[in-house]
Amino acid sequence: MSKKVRVGVIGLGQRGFAMEGNAYSGLIHVFAEIPDVELTMVCDEMPERVQAAIDFFKENKGITLEGTTDYHEVLRSPNVDAVCIVCAWEMHVPIAVDALRSGKAVGLEVGGAYSVEDCYRLVRAQEESGTFFMFLENCCYGRKELMVTNLVRQGKFGEIVHCEGSYSHDLRGEISLGEKIGHYRLRNYLSRNCDNYPTHDLGPIAKLLNINRGNRMVSLTSFSSKAAGLNQYNKEYFGEDHVLAKAKFQQGDIVTTMIRCSGGETILLQLDTTLPRPYYSRRFTVRGTKGMYTEDTDSVLVEGPLSGEIDLNEEHPRVEKNSEEYYKEYDAPIWEEYYRLGIQAGHGGMDWHVLNAFVDAVKNNRPSPIDVYDAAAWMSISALTEASLAQGGALVEIPDFTGGKWVKFPKEEPWKYSL
Amino acid sequence: MSKKVRVGVIGLGQRGFAMEGNAYSGLIHVFAEIPDVELTMVCDEMPERVQAAIDFFKENKGITLEGTTDYHEVLRSPNVDAVCIVCAWEMHVPIAVDALRSGKAVGLEVGGAYSVEDCYRLVRAQEESGTFFMFLENCCYGRKELMVTNLVRQGKFGEIVHCEGSYSHDLRGEISLGEKIGHYRLRNYLSRNCDNYPTHDLGPIAKLLNINRGNRMVSLTSFSSKAAGLNQYNKEYFGEDHVLAKAKFQQGDIVTTMIRCSGGETILLQLDTTLPRPYYSRRFTVRGTKGMYTEDTDSVLVEGPLSGEIDLNEEHPRVEKNSEEYYKEYDAPIWEEYYRLGIQAGHGGMDWHVLNAFVDAVKNNRPSPIDVYDAAAWMSISALTEASLAQGGALVEIPDFTGGKWVKFPKEEPWKYSL
Repeated sequence: MSKKVRVGVIGLGQRGFAMEGNAYSGLIHVFAEIPDVELTMVCDEMPERVQAAIDFFKENKGITLEGTTDYHEVLRSPNVDAVCIVCAWEMHVPIAVDALRSGKAVGLEVGGAYSVEDCYRLVRAQEESGTFFMFLENCCYGRKELMVTNLVRQGKFGEIVHCEGSYSHDLRGEISLGEKIGHYRLRNYLSRNCDNYPTHDLGPIAKLLNINRGNRMVSLTSFSSKAAGLNQYNKEYFGEDHVLAKAKFQQGDIVTTMIRCSGGETILLQLDTTLPRPYYSRRFTVRGTKGMYTEDTDSVLVEGPLSGEIDLNEEHPRVEKNSEEYYKEYDAPIWEEYYRLGIQAGHGGMDWHVLNAFVDAVKNNRPSPIDVYDAAAWMSISALTEASLAQGGALVEIPDFTGGKWVKFPKEEPWKYSL
Repeated sequence: MSKKVRVGVIGLGQRGFAMEGNAYSGLIHVFAEIPDVELTMVCDEMPERVQAAIDFFKENKGITLEGTTDYHEVLRSPNVDAVCIVCAWEMHVPIAVDALRSGKAVGLEVGGAYSVEDCYRLVRAQEESGTFFMFLENCCYGRKELMVTNLVRQGKFGEIVHCEGSYSHDLRGEISLGEKIGHYRLRNYLSRNCDNYPTHDLGPIAKLLNINRGNRMVSLTSFSSKAAGLNQYNKEYFGEDHVLAKAKFQQGDIVTTMIRCSGGETILLQLDTTLPRPYYSRRFTVRGTKGMYTEDTDSVLVEGPLSGEIDLNEEHPRVEKNSEEYYKEYDAPIWEEYYRLGIQAGHGGMDWHVLNAFVDAVKNNRPSPIDVYDAAAWMSISALTEASLAQGGALVEIPDFTGGKWVKFPKEEPWKYSL
């Protein structure tokens, strides 16, 4: 492998290289900030997106990129060491499977799976090829998620019994402009009902609970509210007769999912993307026998030793926005370094961290921080919630994609980019 | 009926007339503050509690109370018009059924049911006797719950699609001192696993969603975390060898329940009583197509009309602790009056309101603000979550205790103590 990791980006839409909205929100811009990366190739099925990316990098960065509308060309290119797959959800698994079999290191942008079989295909392709694979869940690198994980690892919350998270992000605009901006969310919301985007909330929780490393998710059930938010939104913006004002959206506005782990912990997840609300929290919550964190109020509670007489009237005082005092001692080392170096990058730095970890692992032959078993388990939640919801909220089992290896996989080494 | 409503209180423990902790937290003290009430009789199976209440009222209020250890004597007494049943959970339904059949007006303190059959018994006793019955769910009279309900009734949140609530109250001390203070929670936590106390969170939500009045709860599923909180707590306070440090508690620390309504709304409930946390919020949350409220951050969002071009980068700003501005216009009239009169009573006034509504309805022959169908539906959640949890989180149906009348029951009249 060359000194720098030569990266090809497959998918140049909103998350790859946005042409609508904020052009700089695409991952391609974050790659361009990482020293060990050489961006070499871009791909999208829409040729105008390919040309726009080539032009943008030529003009703004003096970088010459190859471009194609056929992702197989990226997989065959001698100028690409690693691919970042950041296309529409439906193509995540097919392209990732082809990429793994081609031998290019794979970084897969997040999304949910359409079937459990797809998750198995992904696992088999990685196991059989031995190719490097990392699931690019940026929220696993969130500063607060890592600080809280640090508190948990050091026993400050006691035994962990319950976690919560939510993708509470008002996406009504993006969904409603789906046809215009070529966004895949619209067709998914029209046709499916599931937690279509579970990994931002689940990923950090799964890491914290050592899922696939001595623990695993065993069963879930999912409930969905009616779908009313998008009709109301489109009625107001486009008028009562607009097709999206009258459309029957299958996707319920709020999908709530409960997961049971083999260790006895429960996880509560929510998809919440089609009703008005501010996006400031993924409601990351961790509850233990000696402490708790909850993101909505940014509250850390660490209970001291208990002794003496029980006082029936004593209660823990309300604490809010007190995490700052814990960052002093429990901030993740990668975040301390990030601030020391004065880096500024997408999504408050999470994007930089996840891509830097990807590139570092590829370049230095390290184990994947978020491997194919993590990806399969987390992505499967979309397919499994769809199955549960189709049966009115039935209890469904969560497969073990490790084939039993979860009972012997060690907890990850505490190396630099481990979680 | 005499000018004043003559009240007999059955149950003189923590909620009736607490001898441990805060003696003034008992409902008996709230009754004593209501002008239209004459407290005449008290009852508890423990004679020392009866004597303590008699002595307390004689000495502090100059009131002479009759006392008994047999609740049937209260039901037979010519000096009692109405009974308030505030005993251990297990006796709520048996005593309420006997009281309804005796013809005394019944106010029943909250708790969950042990079986669906108990809920039917309660309904049948009320239907067959025609006796007045009110479920004394004080949280239905919470100021913020009523203000938010007012916003909803006036359409400010659009169509309501999802609600949440939680009984997030650290009760480890009360439970662990169960034997000493004669509290029924301990034996329940040792033996059962369910949402044993669903009505504080569910009650206000059920009223808001018009449950039993054109809407009903149709199914639920419940997940429970492991039970670890009480063992840890007792180990620290009493030592590793104490019976409660080693006891196998059946009650999971966090029980999460999802409910589907016939109108397509979902309700998320949580029981959260055995892990460290402050008690400042029941996480009352209401989500609609045009607005939301969430109690943890005390955030009201009312979305204005939408028009023009959709801006992909526009988001609702974070709002916190802004409910004060809505109280000006949407405060419940009974709360405006409460403040105008300068009343100060238990649980921030909720207890006063619920008992005042009870006494007002009995005295003036009004319909019950929280009737036997409300009680049966809400209390049944305990038995139904127990059934779901026993099957690992299976989907269970919620009975229709109205026998089909919910499709024709009108929404309640907007009279003074209606919700």
